[in-house]
Amino acid sequence: MMSQQELLEFFNETRAKSERICSFLETEDYVVQPIVDISPPKWHLGHTTWFFEEFVLKDHQENYRLFDKNSAYVFNSYYESVGDKVVRTNRGNLSRPTVAWVYDYRTYVTKAMDKVLKEEELSEKLLGIIEIGCHHEKQHQELLLTDIKYILGNNPLFPEYNDQFRENPIQDFKREWINIAEGVYEFGHKSDDFCYDNELGKHKRYLNEYQISNKLVTNREYIEFMEAGGYEDVLLWHAEGWDWINENKIKSPSYWHNINGSWNQYTLNGLEELVPDAPLSHISYYEAFAYAQWKGMRLPTEFEWEAAQNYFKWGSRWEWTESAYSPYPGFKTAEGALGEYNGKFMVNQKVLRGGSVATSRNHTRPTYRNFFHPNLRWQFTGLRLAK
Amino acid sequence: MMSQQELLEFFNETRAKSERICSFLETEDYVVQPIVDISPPKWHLGHTTWFFEEFVLKDHQENYRLFDKNSAYVFNSYYESVGDKVVRTNRGNLSRPTVAWVYDYRTYVTKAMDKVLKEEELSEKLLGIIEIGCHHEKQHQELLLTDIKYILGNNPLFPEYNDQFRENPIQDFKREWINIAEGVYEFGHKSDDFCYDNELGKHKRYLNEYQISNKLVTNREYIEFMEAGGYEDVLLWHAEGWDWINENKIKSPSYWHNINGSWNQYTLNGLEELVPDAPLSHISYYEAFAYAQWKGMRLPTEFEWEAAQNYFKWGSRWEWTESAYSPYPGFKTAEGALGEYNGKFMVNQKVLRGGSVATSRNHTRPTYRNFFHPNLRWQFTGLRLAK
Amino acid sequence: MMSQQELLEFFNETRAKSERICSFLETEDYVVQPIVDISPPKWHLGHTTWFFEEFVLKDHQENYRLFDKNSAYVFNSYYESVGDKVVRTNRGNLSRPTVAWVYDYRTYVTKAMDKVLKEEELSEKLLGIIEIGCHHEKQHQELLLTDIKYILGNNPLFPEYNDQFRENPIQDFKREWINIAEGVYEFGHKSDDFCYDNELGKHKRYLNEYQISNKLVTNREYIEFMEAGGYEDVLLWHAEGWDWINENKIKSPSYWHNINGSWNQYTLNGLEELVPDAPLSHISYYEAFAYAQWKGMRLPTEFEWEAAQNYFKWGSRWEWTESAYSPYPGFKTAEGALGEYNGKFMVNQKVLRGGSVATSRNHTRPTYRNFFHPNLRWQFTGLRLAK
Amino acid sequence: MMSQQELLEFFNETRAKSERICSFLETEDYVVQPIVDISPPKWHLGHTTWFFEEFVLKDHQENYRLFDKNSAYVFNSYYESVGDKVVRTNRGNLSRPTVAWVYDYRTYVTKAMDKVLKEEELSEKLLGIIEIGCHHEKQHQELLLTDIKYILGNNPLFPEYNDQFRENPIQDFKREWINIAEGVYEFGHKSDDFCYDNELGKHKRYLNEYQISNKLVTNREYIEFMEAGGYEDVLLWHAEGWDWINENKIKSPSYWHNINGSWNQYTLNGLEELVPDAPLSHISYYEAFAYAQWKGMRLPTEFEWEAAQNYFKWGSRWEWTESAYSPYPGFKTAEGALGEYNGKFMVNQKVLRGGSVATSRNHTRPTYRNFFHPNLRWQFTGLRLAK
Repeated sequence: MMSQQELLEFFNETRAKSERICSFLETEDYVVQPIVDISPPKWHLGHTTWFFEEFVLKDHQENYRLFDKNSAYVFNSYYESVGDKVVRTNRGNLSRPTVAWVYDYRTYVTKAMDKVLKEEELSEKLLGIIEIGCHHEKQHQELLLTDIKYILGNNPLFPEYNDQFRENPIQDFKREWINIAEGVYEFGHKSDDFCYDNELGKHKRYLNEYQISNKLVTNREYIEFMEAGGYEDVLLWHAEGWDWINENKIKSPSYWHNINGSWNQYTLNGLEELVPDAPLSHISYYEAFAYAQWKGMRLPTEFEWEAAQNYFKWGSRWEWTESAYSPYPGFKTAEGALGEYNGKFMVNQKVLRGGSVATSRNHTRPTYRNFFHPNLRWQFTGLRLAK
Repeated sequence: MMSQQELLEFFNETRAKSERICSFLETEDYVVQPIVDISPPKWHLGHTTWFFEEFVLKDHQENYRLFDKNSAYVFNSYYESVGDKVVRTNRGNLSRPTVAWVYDYRTYVTKAMDKVLKEEELSEKLLGIIEIGCHHEKQHQELLLTDIKYILGNNPLFPEYNDQFRENPIQDFKREWINIAEGVYEFGHKSDDFCYDNELGKHKRYLNEYQISNKLVTNREYIEFMEAGGYEDVLLWHAEGWDWINENKIKSPSYWHNINGSWNQYTLNGLEELVPDAPLSHISYYEAFAYAQWKGMRLPTEFEWEAAQNYFKWGSRWEWTESAYSPYPGFKTAEGALGEYNGKFMVNQKVLRGGSVATSRNHTRPTYRNFFHPNLRWQFTGLRLAK
Repeated sequence: MMSQQELLEFFNETRAKSERICSFLETEDYVVQPIVDISPPKWHLGHTTWFFEEFVLKDHQENYRLFDKNSAYVFNSYYESVGDKVVRTNRGNLSRPTVAWVYDYRTYVTKAMDKVLKEEELSEKLLGIIEIGCHHEKQHQELLLTDIKYILGNNPLFPEYNDQFRENPIQDFKREWINIAEGVYEFGHKSDDFCYDNELGKHKRYLNEYQISNKLVTNREYIEFMEAGGYEDVLLWHAEGWDWINENKIKSPSYWHNINGSWNQYTLNGLEELVPDAPLSHISYYEAFAYAQWKGMRLPTEFEWEAAQNYFKWGSRWEWTESAYSPYPGFKTAEGALGEYNGKFMVNQKVLRGGSVATSRNHTRPTYRNFFHPNLRWQFTGLRLAK
Repeated sequence: MMSQQELLEFFNETRAKSERICSFLETEDYVVQPIVDISPPKWHLGHTTWFFEEFVLKDHQENYRLFDKNSAYVFNSYYESVGDKVVRTNRGNLSRPTVAWVYDYRTYVTKAMDKVLKEEELSEKLLGIIEIGCHHEKQHQELLLTDIKYILGNNPLFPEYNDQFRENPIQDFKREWINIAEGVYEFGHKSDDFCYDNELGKHKRYLNEYQISNKLVTNREYIEFMEAGGYEDVLLWHAEGWDWINENKIKSPSYWHNINGSWNQYTLNGLEELVPDAPLSHISYYEAFAYAQWKGMRLPTEFEWEAAQNYFKWGSRWEWTESAYSPYPGFKTAEGALGEYNGKFMVNQKVLRGGSVATSRNHTRPTYRNFFHPNLRWQFTGLRLAK
């Protein structure tokens, strides 16, 4: 558990980071929402601010004056139990409040929070909520980057975000298979540090012997699958995956463009030649599964991943696992609105483990459970084989 | 036909007007597209500019250098025969090019056109195309106003556009019925002034005797219909109209909000109390028809409207007529891309006559044929009874 | 106006005809509804029976005992004002009541009607309703044939309906252009015989001089259009027609199958080689319009058709006209449920004139106004050129 | 493993049973497909026959003459690798082949199979395929019953299937909580008897201590949940479940009808008063989950169910578990078309354990893994609480 002083620094660092991420944008980039899964950057900036106002300042602070009584309505997201909200698909239709307004809102709330953290002695419960709020904002920092990539990368002009962001770290080591022995292993968050409710509940599971690769699958390897007709062989696919690639005419990972016979990839630096040895990115679970089928192997479960993660490098791609997102033994949702945080998504989603080049520093850990629907590709998703 | 000098003035006045309309917007307002029928303001500004670049400067001007070779792609609209275009539903997903870029584009093209009009002696054909381009831009000026109203009026914060725009002129005179005698009348554009291809073809039609009101139906009168259960009486509606009001849960004109039992209307000045004696606005053809049924009357045809229009005031609302949008005898589409202008919409639409508070000055005339699908309500549409 | 005795014969002949049409079906054929526009044959048989029970026997006959109190619910169609009904899209989901039940229902109602017509002296009003009921059933006889064609013709086994039905009468005469002089003509139903409300209102219209073909467009001529790339040339199509052919991947008339390079047509006799000189059939208005554009001609209006119809043969194809379906001057809907008959469809539809090989004998006439949405093709629809 | 003689009897008994199930139907009932999840009974009868023709007779029998070369096309289901098939949503649009044809087809194939099983000595592989074919048909027997229930139960006339079928066995014993100790347990199919590929792979798992109810949740208990506002309390639901109940206006289990304030249930005997002490049926996973949340408990995992199943009675309802449908360690898909059997559905579905009143005798077992999407309710699904 962080001290109040540590939390103050963590809070201010987190708030500044979100704004740094957006500092490369034009005003127009803050507004649009090309598909329902992504949100306009100004919404992320406002929503993370609303969290502190709604769950900290408004409730726990006497005489706190809301920046604007309509903000809650516009920036509430999925907390169904906290009043009305703008329908998710509608976020990109709202030109107001403006970006300038959102920055004023951020400043107002950041200052109010800073004052509270500096001048008052806060209860453990309140400190806990603030810490959640910071981690919540860090999650949105990753979404900011992936949503910005979607907004710019699906624009026919392919504008660059900036020229610094490095998406494609090379894995300059040989493929090896790590062998894990059969037996009972322990899972779940163990330390006192922060974690989400879905990681709690230290518990045992039995694993059969397995091997897991020390390397992520690369672009070069995936091109072999494509050239071998992977997208045309129905026997490699889940029934729903097969329907999905056909309905959406999917023939390659997201952001890949074949220009005059050679593969290019839109990155946050703009459109570039594909780097063959970079880890594959922006694939769906369906594609990860089909690739593994084609290799005669499989994806690890989230527990196989966790039990082995000490023996390989991870963190450049969110790694699809075979595990469906389910509650751990003894999982309890928190009371009230914050209880909506994780549990209500525990159906029809797959767990991803690791973290990605877009994940905020100190945000991920070996027990972190990310989750997405099996068809989603706008995150930096990749795959590691097991057998 | 305008002289080249007159056209130069007309052109510059038109270009300036579009920008004046947008001068009240925030940058964010230029970007969004809440429904497919409306377009982002920056798209209107770019598209009307693209028209002059595509159909005048590029083809007729030697050595003309495109402002940007991608602009055509982004700002083409429906000219299917002029290359690729951004899918209409996608316009609101594009944050780039930016608003600043669009203004630079406008300036570049306006200056190039101004130079051409000042320094060269242009052919009649080219002058004709430029005149069409100006009228085309005037049409988009009306769309700018109605699209801006939609963007702001469907924002939960109901922001004001400006405090000058007058939507609701009172008709301070008594209702009277103008009687028109049976006989053969002549229709279609008669003078040498500009008109669209769909107005051409002066021709005769036979009209039966009829009466037409000198006054538009007012909000007060429409409330009577609502209070009498008009929206619940299936026998007043077309089958498709009945399905439409039920699927969309429509119980009142667009932009009406019942707040604590009294009717308010979003106008370009913001949310205001409904003015009972103002002409009804923002209704669909289905609603206009149902109202007329309820009164035991009917809508005029576009020819009944035209034959009588000298005897009443018009111009504050586009008036739904009973006429489907069809070609006049001898209608010919122009050659090439400009031929796509009007004819290809001549199915499933209803003619509206008159003009509205949003129509640009000098843009409408007694023979002007506007047309929309029967369910559309974002224009300033109203109704005049006949019997 | 028919005498009661004539009506009795007309009624019994009509009832028998519907059953003769269905005598070639298997029980299973009576049940299915492949698309919303068509209805299961057993529904047609039941619905036309329900009409007589609902509008004649139940209201006008004391002590009449309903065959089954649930029948009204199942066989009501669009009379919104006469209580609940099964949603149209649901008709093909109902296995009960069975076909045998429907025939029992028919017999029961036919006998009751026969008795009433033989034994009682009926009012003019009631005789009028019964006559409408017979014409209503004749309309459904045509729908029975076209719906059966759809059901069997969209079955991958292409079963034959029977081997007698002749769809493709050859027009063995030369193409000529009939010239009609400019002037005022009279339109609308003139005699005392039966007609629908939409034909009433004898009135004058002014026609410009025009030419109309004495021959329908043939399959051979349409193939020329197809081979000249008609389906690929955007400039020939309405915007909505272009979207429609592309979304539905339409490249030929309905029921055409290209097998090993030559055209076959599903007819009620089964799959057969296309007859080049037969009149084109099963096309949408969009296709009719595009063909006419390609020829540099146009479709006649319904009034041009009516003014010229004495000079050419018609009756094998419903002929698309350029006219939208609108009320005639002075059109009044009937009181009550029967008032729903025609008027409520007067939007977004095109008028077809003539009649087809599937039209019941004595059912059509020169003033008859059929109407369909512009994309529908399951009727025997064709086209005649005008210029 | 069955002997060839045992298999012959098993085969003939299975074939006869399918026909006995359908013996209560009218011809019309065999044809319809009200929603995509269910299939017309004649399709089930044909498809289970096609299986034997395609995978046994055609391949393994020299000189076998297909009953009809088009049957494969019509009755193939999801075996994407075995040629064309009728789109699933289209099954209810096919009136042909007729029901009589399907029975002839069945007789032809049953006789041919009977002859083969009697007269030839078959390989183990072929015997294995035939055994799968019988179990496949038994699965379709359950679907026949549930699809028939859907077809009749969604007909506004609520016809009875027969008066013998017992849906609602009372659990006349007290609720008790069975305690299972923490530790390693073994799972998966153990004997030599038939099982599906998804049960194979005997393996160990670690379970934490838990309690599981000896009784299924009853209608009476579920009504308490409904009356306590369970369907209105967002905090009890998964986000997708909440959207699903709201979009589909779901307020009670499927087949429940509130008539004049008291609950009725459509059963295969027709519409009847709800039996309060019968086990709850026809609920989705979402509803099962929400009920458990409301009780402060949870659903068991499929492993908790399997480890405890010896201590309680099961078999009247398919019991939703918390487990997503995933491959067991070492799961391998079979080679070729039969490999499509189970693995390709292992995403986005939940495992159900047990069996139901509609399950064919000898078809289920303690390791049997049924699976459905979380929103489906047309099976006899229920729930058992764990904690």
